[in-house]
Amino acid sequence: MSKVTLEWCREQDAEDPLRDLRNRFDLPEDLIYMDGNSLGPLPKGVAERVANTINTEWRTDLIKSWNTADWIKLPSKIGAKIAPLIGASAHEVISADSTSVNLFKVAAAACKINPDRFEILSEPGNFPSDLYMMQGLTKFLGGNYKLKTANRTGIIDAITEKTAVVVLTQVHYVTADMLDMVAITKAAHDKGALIVWDLCHSVGAVPLDLNGANADFAVGCGYKYLNGGPGAPAFLFVADRHLEAVEQPLTGWMGHKAPFDFVDAYTPNDSIKRMLVGTPSVLAASAFDTALDAFSGVNMADIRHKSLGLTKLFIDLVQQELSDYSFKNATPTDSNRRGSHVSLMHNNGYAIMQALIDHKVIGDFRAPNYMRFGFTPLYLGYEDVYRAVETLAEIMETEVWQDPKYSERGSVT
Amino acid sequence: MSKVTLEWCREQDAEDPLRDLRNRFDLPEDLIYMDGNSLGPLPKGVAERVANTINTEWRTDLIKSWNTADWIKLPSKIGAKIAPLIGASAHEVISADSTSVNLFKVAAAACKINPDRFEILSEPGNFPSDLYMMQGLTKFLGGNYKLKTANRTGIIDAITEKTAVVVLTQVHYVTADMLDMVAITKAAHDKGALIVWDLCHSVGAVPLDLNGANADFAVGCGYKYLNGGPGAPAFLFVADRHLEAVEQPLTGWMGHKAPFDFVDAYTPNDSIKRMLVGTPSVLAASAFDTALDAFSGVNMADIRHKSLGLTKLFIDLVQQELSDYSFKNATPTDSNRRGSHVSLMHNNGYAIMQALIDHKVIGDFRAPNYMRFGFTPLYLGYEDVYRAVETLAEIMETEVWQDPKYSERGSVT
Repeated sequence: MSKVTLEWCREQDAEDPLRDLRNRFDLPEDLIYMDGNSLGPLPKGVAERVANTINTEWRTDLIKSWNTADWIKLPSKIGAKIAPLIGASAHEVISADSTSVNLFKVAAAACKINPDRFEILSEPGNFPSDLYMMQGLTKFLGGNYKLKTANRTGIIDAITEKTAVVVLTQVHYVTADMLDMVAITKAAHDKGALIVWDLCHSVGAVPLDLNGANADFAVGCGYKYLNGGPGAPAFLFVADRHLEAVEQPLTGWMGHKAPFDFVDAYTPNDSIKRMLVGTPSVLAASAFDTALDAFSGVNMADIRHKSLGLTKLFIDLVQQELSDYSFKNATPTDSNRRGSHVSLMHNNGYAIMQALIDHKVIGDFRAPNYMRFGFTPLYLGYEDVYRAVETLAEIMETEVWQDPKYSERGSVT
Repeated sequence: MSKVTLEWCREQDAEDPLRDLRNRFDLPEDLIYMDGNSLGPLPKGVAERVANTINTEWRTDLIKSWNTADWIKLPSKIGAKIAPLIGASAHEVISADSTSVNLFKVAAAACKINPDRFEILSEPGNFPSDLYMMQGLTKFLGGNYKLKTANRTGIIDAITEKTAVVVLTQVHYVTADMLDMVAITKAAHDKGALIVWDLCHSVGAVPLDLNGANADFAVGCGYKYLNGGPGAPAFLFVADRHLEAVEQPLTGWMGHKAPFDFVDAYTPNDSIKRMLVGTPSVLAASAFDTALDAFSGVNMADIRHKSLGLTKLFIDLVQQELSDYSFKNATPTDSNRRGSHVSLMHNNGYAIMQALIDHKVIGDFRAPNYMRFGFTPLYLGYEDVYRAVETLAEIMETEVWQDPKYSERGSVT
């Protein structure tokens, strides 16, 4: 491999068809932000949209805005904007609640469809909330229900005639290892199981084709690569073939066929609205709705091409510049298996990451020893990646990370 | 009864110790807003708070703000502000999810505490989402679980040794009929049942003493009398004596003892945080947090005194001014049984309410024939009530409500 130079990176940026998309974001000038996989930055227009929601819709028009500002339609409108990013039709996607709550709803719904099977299959080391929610669900369903886990490398072999539903995160939140959605969905169906895909670390970063893969259900996060704001509403997908009969336990009034008839008996809405529960936050939904416009006209194939270019560049530069410092790459070098972030393992990872953040390169840390770096093609360029590794090399060389202040833990780390 | 005059109303306003609290809200000048029981108006400071959350915390400080801006503490901080309004300790209250989702959690938790009983008791005509959620819960718990309903007038007699938990809304969303929290809680406990109070139409409008009544659980809404903004996060209460052992099925990562250890097994937090599920919306929570400052230093006894004064004035004025027009009051005249809104029944209620709204008096309509008027002592005065009834009388006299445009239905009515 020839040495990667700053000039080469600049050439890549000059040729990048997505380079102007950075203008769709309001990023601090001096930061290299590599944590869009945890919290996407502020898209332009969001502050104005929320100010208008507060000052005109809420302040002036008050309760009327449920109709006049179409507040009631926000969950569907957001769903329709997400649909093309995940290979779904607009009527199969809706925004609601948190990812965890949505996971409970769709996994419970899948169990209802497969009533003679009692096993939910996932993987150890899945994003913890996914496992926790499935632990809560199986306990709550009682009887013979149980959560079984198998390593992702052997997940297909672990699907059996006992499996009711397979619940997997497509891109792993630490390693960025990407599962084969088509093959695993087919394997599940071959055994009569259903599948739920958690797209938290995929949506907006890698091309997705839920209907092409014949997926049953999916959930995903609004605040990572979709840039919907801190704690943005989540979304869920129900394949068209399940929409008519799907049942979920959180039967709130927003899921009713006629919520404003105020009748005592629950009748589910005919559409995906039956997956809604309570009244959604209009401030959060308004922010998310405008944030999604950052994807307007963007081709996900271009995103993927650049994402792989950025992550490969980072992996190569770490090898080239940091070979003295015992970093170990935890992320697949095979581009077919790599999502849009890279994790480096280092025993002093926490302190090194805090020093790096202090030097204006923002990544994050995941216990026990992972330094995560997210690469969002919408606003990061090749030179940014070069500068980030350069900064990391300086921090290692100067040993500035050994300053005790970088070992102090915050409540969220 | 002597005739109520505008002068008398003005005298009441002049003597009102709460009259300056209106300055805590950013209300349109020309409106009389009587729908704070459905969507509270914009408190001053909220727009600025949310703008700061977006432009400084999100835009500039990005992911760091989970620590530096204490985003992670918002659910507890909001809970601590609500606690004194409901007669609870700060550690017993937390903000999370929607009222419907919270109701599911606490009702499921109550069933776990009472594992040999399978009956959830509520009332027909309760706020529909409460009934719907209990229908969803009993169906998914399966086995012998069922929802039983009994009219609120006979609710105490309907509690038996079979009752696991009683789920009731203290102030009825249509009639404003207020249940005796102390007596019903005691009746439930006498039969070995637990109680869940839905405080959506109580909190912020009537004094509450959950611990004085020995209540077990409660849920409530952020966007009505608490003015937290459209679809604001909800809250829940768990009595201290249940906190150590309470179990709920939506075991998301925010409820974990150590969410940032990222371990596979769920261990509930020691505190009320175990009732949290997924990542909360920071924009929504920030708005709610500032909105609650409108209650700073306010005595709930003063609120109650004025609330009863306003609702009595309205009921009296309707009788005095509108006796020709077949309105029927659906709200208790007994002040011990009346919440902070009044519902009038009228066969043409929908069109009349639309005409009234068009004439700048904002109430709402609930099927089949209820016109609801909310009376929030923080920003409404006695003269406002007089003007509202005066406007309603004009609408009836001129028959302007018969204009066909007032019969057109919006999607949210």
